[in-house]
Amino acid sequence: MAKRKIEILDTTLRDGAQMEGISFSVNDKFQVLENLATLGIRYVEAGNPGSNPKDREFFARYNEAGNEAYGHALAAFGSTRRKGLKPQDDKGLADLLSAGTETIVVFGKCWGLQVREVLRVSKKENLLMIEETIAWLTEKGREVIFDAEHFFEAWRENQEYTMECMRAAERGGAVCICLCDTNGSTMPEEVARVTTEMVSAFAGMKIGIHCHNDTGMAVANSIAAVLAGADHVQGTLNGIGERCGNANLATIIANLELKYDISCLPEGRLEMLTPIARAMAEVANIVIPNGEPYVGLSAFTHKAGMHVDGVKKNPATFEHVPPDSVGNFRRFLMSEIAGRSAVLDVIRRIRPEMAKDAPEVAGVLHKLKAMEHEGYHFEGAEASQELLVCKELGIYKPFFNLEKIRIASEQPQTGEYSAYAFIKILVDGVDETTAAEGEGPVNAMDRALKKAMKVFYPELTDVRLTDFKVRVLNADATASSVRTLIESTDGHRVWRTVGVSTDVLEASWQALVDSLEYKLMRSQLGWEE
Amino acid sequence: MAKRKIEILDTTLRDGAQMEGISFSVNDKFQVLENLATLGIRYVEAGNPGSNPKDREFFARYNEAGNEAYGHALAAFGSTRRKGLKPQDDKGLADLLSAGTETIVVFGKCWGLQVREVLRVSKKENLLMIEETIAWLTEKGREVIFDAEHFFEAWRENQEYTMECMRAAERGGAVCICLCDTNGSTMPEEVARVTTEMVSAFAGMKIGIHCHNDTGMAVANSIAAVLAGADHVQGTLNGIGERCGNANLATIIANLELKYDISCLPEGRLEMLTPIARAMAEVANIVIPNGEPYVGLSAFTHKAGMHVDGVKKNPATFEHVPPDSVGNFRRFLMSEIAGRSAVLDVIRRIRPEMAKDAPEVAGVLHKLKAMEHEGYHFEGAEASQELLVCKELGIYKPFFNLEKIRIASEQPQTGEYSAYAFIKILVDGVDETTAAEGEGPVNAMDRALKKAMKVFYPELTDVRLTDFKVRVLNADATASSVRTLIESTDGHRVWRTVGVSTDVLEASWQALVDSLEYKLMRSQLGWEE
Repeated sequence: MAKRKIEILDTTLRDGAQMEGISFSVNDKFQVLENLATLGIRYVEAGNPGSNPKDREFFARYNEAGNEAYGHALAAFGSTRRKGLKPQDDKGLADLLSAGTETIVVFGKCWGLQVREVLRVSKKENLLMIEETIAWLTEKGREVIFDAEHFFEAWRENQEYTMECMRAAERGGAVCICLCDTNGSTMPEEVARVTTEMVSAFAGMKIGIHCHNDTGMAVANSIAAVLAGADHVQGTLNGIGERCGNANLATIIANLELKYDISCLPEGRLEMLTPIARAMAEVANIVIPNGEPYVGLSAFTHKAGMHVDGVKKNPATFEHVPPDSVGNFRRFLMSEIAGRSAVLDVIRRIRPEMAKDAPEVAGVLHKLKAMEHEGYHFEGAEASQELLVCKELGIYKPFFNLEKIRIASEQPQTGEYSAYAFIKILVDGVDETTAAEGEGPVNAMDRALKKAMKVFYPELTDVRLTDFKVRVLNADATASSVRTLIESTDGHRVWRTVGVSTDVLEASWQALVDSLEYKLMRSQLGWEE
Repeated sequence: MAKRKIEILDTTLRDGAQMEGISFSVNDKFQVLENLATLGIRYVEAGNPGSNPKDREFFARYNEAGNEAYGHALAAFGSTRRKGLKPQDDKGLADLLSAGTETIVVFGKCWGLQVREVLRVSKKENLLMIEETIAWLTEKGREVIFDAEHFFEAWRENQEYTMECMRAAERGGAVCICLCDTNGSTMPEEVARVTTEMVSAFAGMKIGIHCHNDTGMAVANSIAAVLAGADHVQGTLNGIGERCGNANLATIIANLELKYDISCLPEGRLEMLTPIARAMAEVANIVIPNGEPYVGLSAFTHKAGMHVDGVKKNPATFEHVPPDSVGNFRRFLMSEIAGRSAVLDVIRRIRPEMAKDAPEVAGVLHKLKAMEHEGYHFEGAEASQELLVCKELGIYKPFFNLEKIRIASEQPQTGEYSAYAFIKILVDGVDETTAAEGEGPVNAMDRALKKAMKVFYPELTDVRLTDFKVRVLNADATASSVRTLIESTDGHRVWRTVGVSTDVLEASWQALVDSLEYKLMRSQLGWEE
């Protein structure tokens, strides 16, 4: 039997953009489009070219490239016509058409409270607004999806009028009626019951579902609707959206594909879910919580000793699906709870022959615990961890000695740079003294150190920092400990290092030194390609 | 009719502690206990005094204070006896008893895969391990809850044997059998179906539910179980836990109380949900995602212009419950999407008579957009925002002029401090020149500025920083822009300020200055009590 297929609509660019802290440039929007096209999402909903110049530019550039360039349908989004106007006289609808998309999502009201208090029109006029808007856009050759805003509130207040609104959309020629839980107020059993009724009442149209996560039920509600017969699911790939967010499509897609054998993506694309979700988070400049189902960094991470042992014996003991089915991967953590076997994993990357009960293993464990106690955190800094293991195993010798570094900065700024660093290092008895300016003290320090080190180690030329994070560890604010995490690359590999100190410059220094020494140690051990 | 009551067990201290990045000190554990007692949570599960010295110290200190001090039951947690031993000869069980708690949670296996591959005992021996362990602890006067690990996997593999394990727990005298979705693999309709069967098979015992969030269904599954008759729910208040976390009790409690009228907390405690959840996050040193249902900062935050207008007409338009029902509050954001009315709200806090179409409103909007474009983010920095509005309205005059600040730091550190700052400021033509040392440059700068300012403004004496965050805004790493957010307090109020620059010191300087000037401006405007 053929697999059941569900149509996915991603509204990151429209509903998602309403999240606190989110703002997409035109270039960002094209990156979102490309990512969603790669994953094989059917519809991508954007805004209305009439709402602002940024959206106008976006649709214009999209139409130059053409739908085919992305392999999925872009949908413009707008409301029903204004009261008392004919559709052809409504500027909003003209703008919607000007988007040039094949598909248009029209949202309209069906909840009495909204019709009375927000639109301030009669119930009859609201029905005409729905029908005439959809009919006019359909006549112009557009495929129209009707988003029934506040559908579930409306249903609870007045089923009869809600049904009349849906009939108006049907008469207008909508291909799909999407039931929107706009306030995120509805529980799964109610979604299931009402969706079942709508599916049987509108046999000729697709029924869609659009949920918000105000009760933590957006994923459960979306799936309840699909099991009740809905064939169209709206949400955002990382669940971004106003208040508590839209339904998280990454979770919904993985659940439907892996738990229900219902297809949402073209064959073979599910394995791209994690990398695409992370790329989308980068564009939105948000951090995916580590515990995010399927795509989070910790989704397949094992810390408790018993769990680590169990997964090593049989992954099914603590993994509900194989991590690579969604493009994620398994991690074992070292921590005070974790057993020896996780520590051994890191040691054996360096010394494959090491016995489980060797004193070196206990030594590394002891050192790690002591450093974690000080605030070091190796879970996000594998390079510092490997370096530490090398130090404990006695196979590390320092690549340089710091004689002195002095950093100064001043306000008001007088020249191009606000800070400079003076440095003197020693390598095999040869000293190098130099200095660098920088935009701030960390930048000056980074430049000075690299400038001095490159004299002895030209392979450091391509190393550069790609991320820099600071976290305060306790509540004494500027005098408390800070942890600095640095991400570096040489164009081939990416590695992360950590430093902890009461002084942000000292913490940054530790992480910078680890970053360069890690690169050098890999060369020395013959680990570089 | 009396409200149905559900028993809540919080396992933040046990299952929650298995989350990546979490580690509780003994003092942290007592803070968790106190918070959960304040909220009125029935059971708090901790570890096993035998597992490490930290847990031993914790239980010893708890027993000194006594159960009554916290008004809820602490439960120790441990496994069934080891194979081939009598309960009285098992050190693990002796340790469990030594915890001195009235309640003990015993976990045992019922999944054939685990019994065969992990325990490596016969199915018959496993049944004896369950029954004898519970019977022995019950004889010793303990109330025993049985956590059936991997219950749903077991049920899918072999219902008959799973049922035998439950019967063994019943014979042993457990008061509750908790169905654990250990791998987070189960979907709500299956949870509902199986829970219904268990509730009818074990009329004399409570049935509990313990879910993990690997499919984003932990909340939905817990509620499905309650609707199917389960009377005991396990989880963690902020959903912390291994991999994707445990079921989030904050969401479950709010949903059961507000959507189903089922009681989980003593009367009147639900209003403390948000502050207690945030206090628990502080102890765990995690950040509650802004979009967290009910308790997140954005849970009742409105950004889109239409939503802001709707909520002002009638909150029910975009709020499914009143924010204060869970101790949260409503916020309106200013952003490019938001309408004038949100901007006006802030202006009218300062100038109540300001007309909606006054040129000052447009001026503030314009300035805010320009600064947001540079990377400023006023959503988390209300104090800087109000200060900015005052500047635009012309009612701000600087409280001081900076003549010069010079900051220096060095490595290796020679004295007690690694950095010092020299500062000269002017107030009404009078200058003050001073200096301060600090643990790092930001600390030195903070101390020097405050020292100089206090000469003129003694009311700044009690102002101190409580949080300090740095975020890198783009990917050029140490030379890219950073945004610094500072949280300050004077012991009464808490306020937050922001700075943006390519130089972390310059960004910190802006936020520090805003912090002091905001305090002074409030005094000047007569806003201070």
